[in-house]
Amino acid sequence: MDDDSMGLNKELDGMTVVSLEQAVAAPYCGLMLADAGARVIKVERPEGDFARGYDAGANGQSAIFAWLNRGKESICLNLKDPEDLAVMHRMLAKADVFVSNLAPGSVARMGLGGAELRRDNPGLITCMISGYGQSGAAAKKKAYDFLIQAESGLCSVTGSAESPARVGLSLTDLSTGLTAFSAILRALIQRGRTGRGIDLEISMFDVLADWMNMPLLAHRYMGGAPARSGLKHSFIAPYGAFECRDGAQVLISVQSNREFAALCRQVLQRPELPEDPRFSENPERYAHRDALDAIVADCFAQFTAAEMVDKLDAAQIANAQLNSVADLSDHPFLRNSVVQIGDCDVSLAALPVTSHAGPGQKVPNLGAQTEALRAEFKA
Amino acid sequence: MDDDSMGLNKELDGMTVVSLEQAVAAPYCGLMLADAGARVIKVERPEGDFARGYDAGANGQSAIFAWLNRGKESICLNLKDPEDLAVMHRMLAKADVFVSNLAPGSVARMGLGGAELRRDNPGLITCMISGYGQSGAAAKKKAYDFLIQAESGLCSVTGSAESPARVGLSLTDLSTGLTAFSAILRALIQRGRTGRGIDLEISMFDVLADWMNMPLLAHRYMGGAPARSGLKHSFIAPYGAFECRDGAQVLISVQSNREFAALCRQVLQRPELPEDPRFSENPERYAHRDALDAIVADCFAQFTAAEMVDKLDAAQIANAQLNSVADLSDHPFLRNSVVQIGDCDVSLAALPVTSHAGPGQKVPNLGAQTEALRAEFKA
Repeated sequence: MDDDSMGLNKELDGMTVVSLEQAVAAPYCGLMLADAGARVIKVERPEGDFARGYDAGANGQSAIFAWLNRGKESICLNLKDPEDLAVMHRMLAKADVFVSNLAPGSVARMGLGGAELRRDNPGLITCMISGYGQSGAAAKKKAYDFLIQAESGLCSVTGSAESPARVGLSLTDLSTGLTAFSAILRALIQRGRTGRGIDLEISMFDVLADWMNMPLLAHRYMGGAPARSGLKHSFIAPYGAFECRDGAQVLISVQSNREFAALCRQVLQRPELPEDPRFSENPERYAHRDALDAIVADCFAQFTAAEMVDKLDAAQIANAQLNSVADLSDHPFLRNSVVQIGDCDVSLAALPVTSHAGPGQKVPNLGAQTEALRAEFKA
Repeated sequence: MDDDSMGLNKELDGMTVVSLEQAVAAPYCGLMLADAGARVIKVERPEGDFARGYDAGANGQSAIFAWLNRGKESICLNLKDPEDLAVMHRMLAKADVFVSNLAPGSVARMGLGGAELRRDNPGLITCMISGYGQSGAAAKKKAYDFLIQAESGLCSVTGSAESPARVGLSLTDLSTGLTAFSAILRALIQRGRTGRGIDLEISMFDVLADWMNMPLLAHRYMGGAPARSGLKHSFIAPYGAFECRDGAQVLISVQSNREFAALCRQVLQRPELPEDPRFSENPERYAHRDALDAIVADCFAQFTAAEMVDKLDAAQIANAQLNSVADLSDHPFLRNSVVQIGDCDVSLAALPVTSHAGPGQKVPNLGAQTEALRAEFKA
């Protein structure tokens, strides 16, 4: 391995992040800051981040909490107690980044607003994460991941024709946490030029609204948002899941005449089909999709899913298996990472950006570093 | 506005990004680099990024393409032509970042691998985006957003009990583009310390696998991944959408006894319900959710959605409307941004991170800067 092929390696080494965080969005941001080499101090209420109680799968502790909080230090502070608030102030006086996803305004009410803190610490970057924004009517609206999926219209374009559905992962929280992480990196780069920190505000609604631009623009400029169609596509055929001999389903998505010809010749063994006027171009294929789907279904039903994937790969037809979560867990491409919470090892999907150091494997017990941090940041 | 409250403002000013990009993932990454102040040169094949043909909603040009490509320059190059490839080399010799989402290996086959390029330009950061990875069997597997949703197990936890569904936005592409953006920022920070660029590889499957950790950990440590349940929750009640008098649906998600008591007292006008042993704690409420849902449904049916949202907000019960995309388009919290493609203005949802400069409002026509860039990067 030459020097050029070295990857990321503690590029935020020496940076301190204080994160007054709970649940998912801010903790996920903090996790990536830790992965980048920053020291991340997680400030918890005396009773702890309620995400510690999301599940008890890791010998009584939460496996989900372990995923989101490995590599951090934990300090318990009661910020209504003036002495604890003073500890918080002393940590922030030396911090590079202050992240929070408490309710809008609550950080400022404790005297922890960015402008105030920068009087002593001009390089401090603050990042406040909220549901709908930090001011006005929006600031008062409570928010959870699922509710913002509904409010943003996402549920209306997800699911079957009959019933809208939520997305089965915490899309809003994770996209917001990653957006906040990127914004903090931008502010750190800017501080390298100006020497000054800034305030960042990230709203979950804004993040999801940007991600909704495809259906939004379809509504505004293309005659309407796409209809919900389960696993089917609203204007491409063949497209969707087909059942194989072993009951497993394989998906295809045929996006060009070249791919369709290869499918007919190499997979369906029906080289004449592209000449059939019903199937010559995608609009014709879509109009006659019932007939076409029947031909595809007949063929797929004769092979196991593994055989069919091999055939499709050989013909260079994009395909996927309709995997369960158990299938994901055993997937040959899955990169696992093992972390420790309490005395329990938790094997989870690794972060997608590879770094040499990684975020560390230890998940802090509640307040594990309280005494050490109190001593380090004493008056 | 004091100096402290200044935000992000062209923090990547002076940086040049060359992006050999198509479709969604890499263009979305490039969009954010442009928003951060970098000069982003989009390299297109002579026939153009096929995303220019995604729709014709903007006076014959694509509104979706406009969303993803505002603020960039466009140069057409045929990289099979040695002269055009030489132009590419000369641009990369002066670039800070090289992004690509061509098929794995194709960039290296053209002599555009990171280690090679860094001989002349040691600070160059490369970021290669793929479906499943850059090497081995994974590199050969073709990928589209929807197929990776299926392959990762996401479709198996999204939709109704009867039918799995894909997510109605390009989740895989957008999460990967944002991850790539964050990785490039990390590498730029590292280069500030080391003076050396590095190679980054981002796979869409890896990104989605990390985001699937919640159902994955449920499968591994909590007795099974959650069942698909449309808009319902698998262990919280009341939770879900209820129809109001005007036909609109309002969602609630009651996550504590305190919230349930407030719902009963202030919204349902049934202050005695929390004393009912069927509804005392969440497990009881979930066990008797049919009876509970009927009470909630009766109440919601008496008010319009707007009235019900006011009542719920007053009681501090988190809620949302089950909005359509049309509702999103008119949402009072939506921040719009107007961009120009050809002679057409396109109004779209703004980027969630506010920056003073913004990515620019102009979307380049195909090859708009070809001659100017050829002249700038002549031999």
